[in-house]
Amino acid sequence: MAGIADVARAAGVSKSTASRALTGAGYVSDGTRAKVREAATQLGYVPTTSAVSLVTGRTQTIGVVVPTLDRWFFAQVLEGIQDALLERRYDLALYGAPPESDARRDMFETFLARKRFDGLIAVGIEPSAHELERLVAFGKPVVSVGGYDVGTNAVSIDDRAAGRIATEHLVGLGHRAVTFVGGDPDGRRTSFGDQQRLDGYLTAMSDAGLEASARHIASEATMPGGYGAAVELLGDRRTRPTAVVGVCDEVAVGAIIAARRLGIRVPDQLSVVGIDDHAYAEMFSLTTLQQKPHQQGRAAVQLLMWQLDDPDAATHRIYESSPLIVRSSTAAVDDAASAIVGVGP
Amino acid sequence: MAGIADVARAAGVSKSTASRALTGAGYVSDGTRAKVREAATQLGYVPTTSAVSLVTGRTQTIGVVVPTLDRWFFAQVLEGIQDALLERRYDLALYGAPPESDARRDMFETFLARKRFDGLIAVGIEPSAHELERLVAFGKPVVSVGGYDVGTNAVSIDDRAAGRIATEHLVGLGHRAVTFVGGDPDGRRTSFGDQQRLDGYLTAMSDAGLEASARHIASEATMPGGYGAAVELLGDRRTRPTAVVGVCDEVAVGAIIAARRLGIRVPDQLSVVGIDDHAYAEMFSLTTLQQKPHQQGRAAVQLLMWQLDDPDAATHRIYESSPLIVRSSTAAVDDAASAIVGVGP
Repeated sequence: MAGIADVARAAGVSKSTASRALTGAGYVSDGTRAKVREAATQLGYVPTTSAVSLVTGRTQTIGVVVPTLDRWFFAQVLEGIQDALLERRYDLALYGAPPESDARRDMFETFLARKRFDGLIAVGIEPSAHELERLVAFGKPVVSVGGYDVGTNAVSIDDRAAGRIATEHLVGLGHRAVTFVGGDPDGRRTSFGDQQRLDGYLTAMSDAGLEASARHIASEATMPGGYGAAVELLGDRRTRPTAVVGVCDEVAVGAIIAARRLGIRVPDQLSVVGIDDHAYAEMFSLTTLQQKPHQQGRAAVQLLMWQLDDPDAATHRIYESSPLIVRSSTAAVDDAASAIVGVGP
Repeated sequence: MAGIADVARAAGVSKSTASRALTGAGYVSDGTRAKVREAATQLGYVPTTSAVSLVTGRTQTIGVVVPTLDRWFFAQVLEGIQDALLERRYDLALYGAPPESDARRDMFETFLARKRFDGLIAVGIEPSAHELERLVAFGKPVVSVGGYDVGTNAVSIDDRAAGRIATEHLVGLGHRAVTFVGGDPDGRRTSFGDQQRLDGYLTAMSDAGLEASARHIASEATMPGGYGAAVELLGDRRTRPTAVVGVCDEVAVGAIIAARRLGIRVPDQLSVVGIDDHAYAEMFSLTTLQQKPHQQGRAAVQLLMWQLDDPDAATHRIYESSPLIVRSSTAAVDDAASAIVGVGP
C-alpha cells in the first residue's frame, strides 16, 4: 500500500508538504493541495490515523457504551449508530459490559479514561452508579439513548406515556384485572425506562379507579423471563388476571407462549400488550406500542455531530413517538370466559 | 487529569524519560521505570494513545467485522470477543454492515483500509466476495469465526457434522420424511456455514437410503423466517413431513410455533431439531446441537493474541464441539399419527 513518501514523490513535493496538504494542518497553497490530493487518490493512499489524530486532536472515533448486545433493543440501536457513523466516516469503538460487573468498573476506570474517542453515545445507562455523570466528566460530548439524562443530549421514547397508553388500551376494552409483568421485585435493579413504564401503568390504573387490582410481577426483560413469570401468574385460575401489560415485547411474547402451554386462549381468555414492535411481534399477532431503536441510534449520532460542530449548542431531549399497533392479542374482556375462570377447577 | 509532564515532575525525570518508561520504547533503567510507573499510578495518568501508537506502531485496538448484530449467534460471538479484549486491555473497533450492501463495500474500501487496528476478527464472513482474502491483504493478523478460512486462524463448529448428526437423530427415531428448512432457494445467498449444514443433512439422508425423500425448503435464518416457511411446508397434509431439521434454532422454533398454530402436535405429529442451543431452546423444549458462540469469540481473541506475539506461528482451524441435547421436540415416528395425516382432509 502507498505511503506518504510515495504520494510526495508522485506530487513532486516534500513529505512534510504532502502531510500538511492531507491533514489540513499548516499552510499549503491551493494548487499544491490539489496536486497532492490527486496523487493520494491515484495511489489509493489512506493516512495513518494516529499521525492524523496527533495533528488534528481528533480521533475520528465515537465510543458507544452498551450494557449487553443480546437484546433486540440494544442490537438495533447499535446498528443504527453504526450505519450513521459509516456514512460520516467515523469509526465505532464498542464498550460493552453488564451493569454492576467488574468488567464494567474496569471499563470506566481504564478504557474510557484513555479517551480514544471524540464523543460518546451511552445506551441504556442506569442512574444508580452515576455513570452518565462520569462520562460527562471526561469533557467530551455525550448523548444518552434509552436511559436517563443529566442535561445532556438524549433520545428515547416517552416510557411513562407508553406504559400508560398500553394500560389504557386494556382498561378501555373493559379489563379490570390487569397485571404488569417486568422489572425487579424490589425495584433496585429495574432499568430506568422499565421503571418509567411501570409508573405509567400505575398512573393509568389509578386514573381508572383500579388501584386495588393493580398488580406487579417481577420478570427478567427477556422472552424466557416473561414465560417463567407468566407460568406462575397464570397457573392459579382463582387469581388469574384477564389482561397483561408486558414491560417489553419479549416479556409479552413469553406470556403468550406460557398461556398457550397452559391452554389459555389469547385473546379470548387473556389479552396481552407489549412495548417495542419487536421483529417477533407480528408472528404472535401482538398488540404493542411501536418504537424504532434503529432510528434512535441514528438520531443520537446526529445530535452528537451537532455538538461536535458547536460545543456550545443547546442540548435536546428527543422523545421518539411510539404509536399503538393493535393486532389480535387484545380483545374486549369476555365476562363469560372470566366467569368460567372464576369457578372452574 | 494528570499529563505526562505531571508524571515526569513527580518522578523527578524528564518528560522524554517518563514517556520511554511508560511506552516501553527506548532504554530506561529498571529503577527509573519503577519510579515513573509508581508516579503514573498515583496520579491516575492514562497515556494519550495516538502518541503511544506512533511510538510503538501498535493501536491497542482489534477490529471486528460482522454482518449484523440482530442475531443471537453474532451478538454472542461479539460479547465473547469484547470480554476477552477488555481483559487484555484492547479496544474493540466495530465494523458492521450487511453482505452485498453499499455500506459493506465502503467499509472495505475506506474504513478497513485505514488499518486502525493491530488485527482483525472476521465473523460470519462469506466466500462469495473474497472478503477474507482482502482482509488478509492488509498485512495484519486475521482470525475467522463461523465462516470460511484461507489458511488463516479460524474458529467454528463442524457445521457439516452438525447437519449430519441432527438428521441421523431423526432417522434413528424412524423418520423417513425429513425436510431441511433454511438457506436460499438457489443457494447463492446461503451462508457458508448453512450450506455445510445442508450438505451434512443430504449426506445423512443419502447414507440412510432416503435420497428420494430428501427435501429442502428455503427460509431466512430467523424465527419469523422459519415460521413463514413452516406454515407453507406444514399446511398441506398430503405432503407434510414427519420431521424437520432447522438450519438453526431460530428457524426450528419458528417451525414449532407454526405447528402449534396449525394444530399439529410436537412431537407426536412432528419432530423438530435445531442447531445452536439458543437462549429460547429450553422454553420450546427443543432438541438441538449445542454451540457456544461466546466461547468461540473468546477463542478467536486467544488465537489473534498468539499471532500478534509470534507472527510466524502456525495457524489453526479450531472446531468447537457441538453435542446433541435431546429435549422433547423429537420422538419416535408415530405410524398411527402419520397414517391419519395421510388420509385426513
